[in-house]
Amino acid sequence: MLTEKENQYMLEAIKKAEENIISGTGGPFGAVVVKDGKIISSVGNRVTSTNDPTAHAEVVAIREACEVLNTFDLSGCEIYASCEPCPMCLGAIMWARIDKLYYAANRIDASRAGFDDELFYSELALPSDKRMLNPTQILQKEAITVFDKWIESTDKVPY
Amino acid sequence: MLTEKENQYMLEAIKKAEENIISGTGGPFGAVVVKDGKIISSVGNRVTSTNDPTAHAEVVAIREACEVLNTFDLSGCEIYASCEPCPMCLGAIMWARIDKLYYAANRIDASRAGFDDELFYSELALPSDKRMLNPTQILQKEAITVFDKWIESTDKVPY
Repeated sequence: MLTEKENQYMLEAIKKAEENIISGTGGPFGAVVVKDGKIISSVGNRVTSTNDPTAHAEVVAIREACEVLNTFDLSGCEIYASCEPCPMCLGAIMWARIDKLYYAANRIDASRAGFDDELFYSELALPSDKRMLNPTQILQKEAITVFDKWIESTDKVPY
Repeated sequence: MLTEKENQYMLEAIKKAEENIISGTGGPFGAVVVKDGKIISSVGNRVTSTNDPTAHAEVVAIREACEVLNTFDLSGCEIYASCEPCPMCLGAIMWARIDKLYYAANRIDASRAGFDDELFYSELALPSDKRMLNPTQILQKEAITVFDKWIESTDKVPY
């Protein structure tokens, strides 16, 4: 059952998306991170104004929330995204250990507005060797040696 | 046909991964962005030292390369990752328009070292409503209105 608060958080995310069209800060996307009923971060996409292709609204909202809460673990938080997160942002949300995702528009709506979210979801669904990046694996053995050292390390910080 | 240079770039990425185990800067992952035979950025993961769950090696390498080249478009670049990129990083690489991906260890090797790459790939393969984040869609109509404004905007910067 949705509450009035959930609608308000989403309207805030949508407002951030809309502000970007006026300000030219980035694409028309916004995101809000909420914890215990309080907005921790509320931002718009900043890709074009900061020359950072990873500065999608969700990623920026996660970075800011982590800064505010002084942690890399946003367990107990919810994220409100004005559009269904792309694979990069969905990954970021999972790595941040956010509990719950609300979104408004979907990847098809984003595609209609000229964005590649749907295309990238299709890419991820392909076997690795069919993807546009044509990934090539080299030196696996040398890299595994580093993982072995990590496993053996006694003072590591897991995440 | 792999050249000696490709091996050298990957060994550099693996070196960055290994340095992190000593320095404690983050997880045992490194990445190198190369353009026209020149290393543009060469970094290790910084998740735990910067409280940024998005600061995977590939994401940091992309951000730094964009800063150096003063653009959000890394067309013409290659990326060398000491481990197969997770879904977040693969998305970041695609958004950055990088042409080619080389990787060393794979997601199974990462899983053995305690990382969730393989789990998150499995999550992305699920239908949206089966995912751990249990995504809930609200206010789609309001968000589409913003996309319509974006489509109509004449001074937008696409990416």
